[in-house]
Parts: sequence; structure tokens; C-alpha cells
Amino acid sequence: MTQIARFRHAGTDRLGAVHGEHYIDVTRAYAAAQAAKGASNGDALAAAVLPPDALSFFEGGEASLAALREALVHARSLETAQAVNDGVLVPRSATKTLVPIPNPPKIVCVARNFGKHAAEAGLQISEIPILFPRFAATQVADGDPIIAPFVSHELDWEGELAVVVGKGGRHIAKEDAFDHVGGYTIFNDVTVRDYQFRVTQYTGGKNFHASGPVGPHISLVDEGLDPHNLRITTTVNGVVKQDASTEEFIFDIPTIIEHVSEFIELEPGDIIPMGTPAGVGFKRTPPEYLADGDVIDVTVEGIGTLSNPVRAEAR
Amino acid sequence: MTQIARFRHAGTDRLGAVHGEHYIDVTRAYAAAQAAKGASNGDALAAAVLPPDALSFFEGGEASLAALREALVHARSLETAQAVNDGVLVPRSATKTLVPIPNPPKIVCVARNFGKHAAEAGLQISEIPILFPRFAATQVADGDPIIAPFVSHELDWEGELAVVVGKGGRHIAKEDAFDHVGGYTIFNDVTVRDYQFRVTQYTGGKNFHASGPVGPHISLVDEGLDPHNLRITTTVNGVVKQDASTEEFIFDIPTIIEHVSEFIELEPGDIIPMGTPAGVGFKRTPPEYLADGDVIDVTVEGIGTLSNPVRAEAR
Repeated sequence: MTQIARFRHAGTDRLGAVHGEHYIDVTRAYAAAQAAKGASNGDALAAAVLPPDALSFFEGGEASLAALREALVHARSLETAQAVNDGVLVPRSATKTLVPIPNPPKIVCVARNFGKHAAEAGLQISEIPILFPRFAATQVADGDPIIAPFVSHELDWEGELAVVVGKGGRHIAKEDAFDHVGGYTIFNDVTVRDYQFRVTQYTGGKNFHASGPVGPHISLVDEGLDPHNLRITTTVNGVVKQDASTEEFIFDIPTIIEHVSEFIELEPGDIIPMGTPAGVGFKRTPPEYLADGDVIDVTVEGIGTLSNPVRAEAR
Repeated sequence: MTQIARFRHAGTDRLGAVHGEHYIDVTRAYAAAQAAKGASNGDALAAAVLPPDALSFFEGGEASLAALREALVHARSLETAQAVNDGVLVPRSATKTLVPIPNPPKIVCVARNFGKHAAEAGLQISEIPILFPRFAATQVADGDPIIAPFVSHELDWEGELAVVVGKGGRHIAKEDAFDHVGGYTIFNDVTVRDYQFRVTQYTGGKNFHASGPVGPHISLVDEGLDPHNLRITTTVNGVVKQDASTEEFIFDIPTIIEHVSEFIELEPGDIIPMGTPAGVGFKRTPPEYLADGDVIDVTVEGIGTLSNPVRAEAR
């Protein structure tokens, strides 16, 4: 099971792999592995092959995966105290988690992809997937605040599984779709409901500043998860609000990949949040919205938990 | 009047300013201006201050504009044959026009912004702007083909004026909006109608591969255009299909800038296509769609003409 994450430590942004209480700094681990084999330019090799940049990792495809595996094997062979001293291992408690991919080519979100959620929202199930884009700049790292805007109080949660594209492509057939999945992460597709629904297009309601928590890690597909059999749970201040399985997807991952790649090329690092289950706030009686001080946790079984507080926007 | 463009010449991508039959290569002109003042590191200064990258130009704000002016003054003082020899002037006939900003942080398009177009489409005028995103990768340079997809034959034109954001910002008041406009360009918001309308969200229909012609130049705001009094004309194979004035905008540029910046920060280089007038193909009797071999020209008065052929997608 390999989970990669971007983190900040000692003022620099690094690419890590979760290793118990530590991150393996995979760039430094790869450099150390090359040095151990006698290379005098390990740092330069690592900067080229496994830079501390998740988008480059996905763009690198099989070569990046092979380098990652070599880095992990080397790091796990080291004595812990020495590896920490060399910066190959970093205590996770000493790091700040960053957005996994700050610069994805695209974020394409799926709407109404759970039958019960569509029903609660009073919406028909469509014949084909309904998609809306989210701007990359709206992403929020695990632990960082979702900003509750002062122009609306209708801030709502949407816990989701998200697909991270590995290999790009166009006109990808369903049967080939999983060849193009690089990993999975968690998305909280936080929505400002009045901005979403007062016009036909969701653009504003789905793209408020600091409204897109994502992470904390990306689980690579080498770990054999079945993405269509994962429990998604969303809690607000510890109270369960959403609890469903991805087996309820109306459009499964291959169908979404086939459909999106009909019109646009999928690229490495694209993120596809797969839609949220029943239990969002605006369809509760009475409606419930998020406010300053709330904490939202989205847990996807086998992947992790994404936790974010809400903070009111400064006027 | 300053019009900037990206172009390819002798295998490299350059930033130019239109100068009659030539482009002034503004990076080289700035370097030459520094060298003329005695600097021995003119190229390094130019690479830092005025790189051949339009996004950096807009990010540089007033400093970039000052450097551009210095570069233009210097280039215009040179003898033409020598300047061509030095690569400061490049004959436009020897260049390939590129997309003006290949990597805008956002492209936010305005829908239904001309009363007559909304009426012909059978759509109500909304109380607030309707917006939809376009992915940067869908952009097409002047002269390059719009690709007619094989999954649909409903390919339609939409000639538009587009705003290029100069200074970024959030919660921008209408009265301050023009301080944030860096320039204007032309957009052909080519749409696949069945994909646009068979679900509620326009995402697919507005984001087909190679469906977003833009350019050829960006007219900087220093030229005193009134963007609310410009004629927009779209022709298909020389026949006028759209002919309207931007004075018909339902939501003017300050209103759009105020509204978008309510939910997200505008950033330098963001592109805002302002919506298309009446005369699109799908509302004609009988409907008209684009096909392989057609040529679409969009002319915005005072800015230029964006011309693109249509080519069928290879199967």
C-alpha cells in the first residue's frame, strides 16, 4: 500500500510516501539510493526522475513508479535515526500537509452520481453523466480552513472519492479505463447552494475561494483497492451526515472516463471527484449549513480521512 | 495602440508586439535596449523582466508594461534591416501565431449576455450572470483548425470579445473593475450543441478538444478602446452570420468582474469571453452546423480578426 503526499518541512515543499509515523521523502530517498550505488550526482538524478512535485510524478508514468519503488525499498532499508538525520525520513508530526496536486490540468466533478442523493435533491437521474469543472485554485489542503464567505450562509458539505488520472488519453474505452487511473484521493466538494442554483450553471456555487478540500494523500492503484466498494462517511463536528458505499455510483469510474475522454483528452494529474452520496445539508429538515468553527471529516475506507475546519471570511 | 502576440519563429516561441508587417520581439528588444545603455547582461535582464511568456507579462503588471514601452521605443529607433538581422524585428509572414496565453489560470465564459441571442435560444435573461468554465487545453491559435468531432455533427460558432485580466483581485467593485483589465482579445466559443444541452451543465459541449479559437493578439488597454462600443462580426465561408455591438451586453464588463470576484480571486492572465450575439447556427431555420473545410472569421472592431478552418477529427 503506497500513499503519496506533498508536505512542507523546514520551509520546503516535498513529495513523500506515508511510512508509519514518518514520511519517506521520496526525492531524497531516490538520491540516497543512487548514491549508495556509487553515483556522485544522486541529487541531480532525483531532481530529474522523482522531483518533489506530484504532477511530474503522474506525468512520469511507469518510469516514476519504478523510481518510487526503488526509493521506498532503499528508505525502508535504512536505520531510522540516521535516515531522519539525513532527511530521508521526516516525522509526519513535524510537517504541514499540502494539497496533493496544486496544478492539476483539470478538475472535472461528477454531479448526481448516487441515486439517493439525486432523489433527496429532487433531481432526475440523467442518461449521461453531468459534469462541472472546479478551478485548481479553489483547492484546500487537509487541515486548512474552508472559508465561509460573507456573501452567503448556504455553505454545504459533499464528501467524495476522487480519481487521479495516471496515463492520459482520448476516446478511452470502458474496458481500458483502469489503465488510466493513477490513484485515489478524497474530495470535499464544498458548495455554496444559493450560488449553485440561482442560475443554470453551477460555476459560482462550486468555485468559491478555499472551498475544495482534497487529500491528505493519494493512494496509488498498486494497493489493489476496489474503488466501487468503499464506504464514504462525512461527519460534521463528529456527527455522521453522510454514510454510503461507492457501490451506489450511478455512473462507475470506467463510464466516467469513457465519457469525459469523448470530448477532451485526459491528462496525467487530472482529478475527477466522483460525486457525493445522500446526506448533504441543504436537503435536511431544517436545512443545515456550515459556519465558522465547524469541523468536517470525510473518510473513505482504505484511503484515509480528510479533515478541515471552517473559518469565516474576513471582511 | 499596442497589440501583443505569441509567435513561433525559427523553432522558438516568442512574445511580440505588432509593428506593421513585423513583430517586435519584445524580449530581444528589451535586451538590446539594455545593451545600448551599456549593460553586459541584457539577455539575462530581459529573461527576468520581459520573458517570452504572456502570462509572466500580465503577472508583471506595471513593471512589465514599463519594460514593454522601453523595448518598443528602442525597437522603433532601429534601422529595419539591421533589426531583422538581429532578431529584434521578425517578418510576421515568417511566423506561426500561437495561442496568446496557453496557461491562463482560468477561462470563465459568460453565457446569454446579448438580449437577442438569449431570445433566439428561447432562454430567459437571468438576474445574475451565467458563467461556465472552459479548460485552457481547449484553446486553438489563429489559423489552426477547429476539430469537428466524430461523436456529434452539431458544431456551432460563437464569436466573442474576451477580457484579459491584468491586475488580480477579490471583491472588486464595479467602479474599480477597469483597473483590473489588462487587455482584450477575440474568442470563438465553439460549441457542440447536443453535448451542451442534453444535460444541465454545459461542461462537455463547451470543452471539446480544439474548440476554443482565441487571438490572434491581445490589445492592451493603453490604446483607449471603448469595449462597450465594438462591432462583432462572425462569418462562415465569407457569409455574415453574427453582426452586433458590444453595447448590447446585458451584463457589462464591470458587472462581470464584480460578480466573478465575489466567489473567486481573479488572477493576471485570466480570460473572460463575454458572450456571443444572435446569429448562431443551431437557432437558424434550418439549423446550420460547421463541417470539415469551413472557415470561420470573427472580427472585433479595433482589435482584429480571428480566422480558423474546420477539420474533421481523425478516427
